[in-house]
Amino acid sequence: FYGHLFQLKSESYALLCLTFSTVQLYMISSTVLFYGNYVLCQCLGLLCVVFVSYWNIEWRGGFAWDASFLQFNWHPVLMVTGLVVLYGNAAILYRIPFTWSQRKQHWKLVHAALLLSSLILSILGLCAVFDFHTGYHIPNLYSLHSWVGICTVVLFTAQWLLGLVGFLSPCSPLGFRKLLKPVHAWMGMAIFILSLASCLSGINEKLLLALNGNSNSTAAYSSHPAEALFANFLGVLIVAFGLVVLGILSNQRWSRLEPGEESSRVSILLSADTNRPSWLL
Amino acid sequence: FYGHLFQLKSESYALLCLTFSTVQLYMISSTVLFYGNYVLCQCLGLLCVVFVSYWNIEWRGGFAWDASFLQFNWHPVLMVTGLVVLYGNAAILYRIPFTWSQRKQHWKLVHAALLLSSLILSILGLCAVFDFHTGYHIPNLYSLHSWVGICTVVLFTAQWLLGLVGFLSPCSPLGFRKLLKPVHAWMGMAIFILSLASCLSGINEKLLLALNGNSNSTAAYSSHPAEALFANFLGVLIVAFGLVVLGILSNQRWSRLEPGEESSRVSILLSADTNRPSWLL
Repeated sequence: FYGHLFQLKSESYALLCLTFSTVQLYMISSTVLFYGNYVLCQCLGLLCVVFVSYWNIEWRGGFAWDASFLQFNWHPVLMVTGLVVLYGNAAILYRIPFTWSQRKQHWKLVHAALLLSSLILSILGLCAVFDFHTGYHIPNLYSLHSWVGICTVVLFTAQWLLGLVGFLSPCSPLGFRKLLKPVHAWMGMAIFILSLASCLSGINEKLLLALNGNSNSTAAYSSHPAEALFANFLGVLIVAFGLVVLGILSNQRWSRLEPGEESSRVSILLSADTNRPSWLL
Repeated sequence: FYGHLFQLKSESYALLCLTFSTVQLYMISSTVLFYGNYVLCQCLGLLCVVFVSYWNIEWRGGFAWDASFLQFNWHPVLMVTGLVVLYGNAAILYRIPFTWSQRKQHWKLVHAALLLSSLILSILGLCAVFDFHTGYHIPNLYSLHSWVGICTVVLFTAQWLLGLVGFLSPCSPLGFRKLLKPVHAWMGMAIFILSLASCLSGINEKLLLALNGNSNSTAAYSSHPAEALFANFLGVLIVAFGLVVLGILSNQRWSRLEPGEESSRVSILLSADTNRPSWLL
């Protein structure tokens, strides 16, 4: 009888060890997969900034702040860097496994600071184009690109201010924070999608205006000049960066759990819906 | 003692009734909210189709299939109708509470049929622009809009075929379906975002080419002619439609649960994370 009991105990122990190892294995593979995606995201983000800068240096004459065409060139650089790359990085900050064990308050400040930098760059990017328009007597906000772009920055400003009041102000009540959280995450995602659409339509608009407006017909956009191919490829990089960011945000395995939810990480890891999006977690 | 016991039982019963009523109230308000969003989505979708058709009839000369400018006019109409409105409707089909009590197999066929119609319209839309380009000796696929657009349709075709093999073929194993489901839902969302970006950049491109290429300078895009305002507003309608569709997809309360998961609807409804996105459910 004791032998039988011992065997049962050993079997239960072995099963427990096996479950524990499976969970650990899942956690390790999930973390490795995250960092793979994270490195890809950083590389794509860096390439976006390099490509948009090189495009404006090599083919558009570089930069200045004198209400000339050279001031306009800051517009794509600041928008891609601020509204896409910095914004995307701020959005996925809470997904980094390294941050889960640390106080959320610190990372909230990093999240807010990254988004503030992104907002400042975006507003400077708008100043660049408005100054250039004033200098050349071009009306503002006439194209669909500009309508979508301005809506994106206005929504972003409102979202940042509401986030500051709701999540960083010590007098914000817990009930309000809980109510605001899904709206904040949803709006954040909508703003990111709008900024991707703004950037793509903006690159397209710039190439149409710059290349087709050129008297040298061999440089027309439709004749596939090197600049067009290069800037189109920048658009592809922006799409790839956006999809990787949205992919990271959509995977529930990589969401930071609130205090008391930690135990459910195991059930998330072992559930069939490990890839269920969880932007609002 | 019996009086005390009776009181306890009555209290438990009252608590049970209260919980039940709360759940029922949540379910009713959740359904009402869904149908509110659904009606909004249908109105916006209809407006998108009306606006894109009216734009091409009123300002672009109407339609024909003769490799002329009039054939090109089918391109925006077919793309907005197929790739945005029909596609968006197919994506939110499983979210309609009315369908939850019915066999999923029937709704899978409706989902596949809607997407096939969307795909056929998109391919016809591509034929319209390719034929027009051939007629006027304009190179194909030179702009960033065309790069993003062609990628969207290629991904959509692959997604539809893989969905057919994975979810409608009777010989597809259950393990493969489970593995494919999150990828299918994720890809579906990515394709929808790309189609929104393609449509916005396409409307912008068409207005730049049509209005700025016109010898009558008063009609230039930057002088805010009626056509530009109308077509820009079409872009705003497309953005609104897209955000409502993504909003519906992101709300876990409106996701169809698989057999055996029905009991968790109550916990979803009563949890704090009722708005947690659930595209992959």
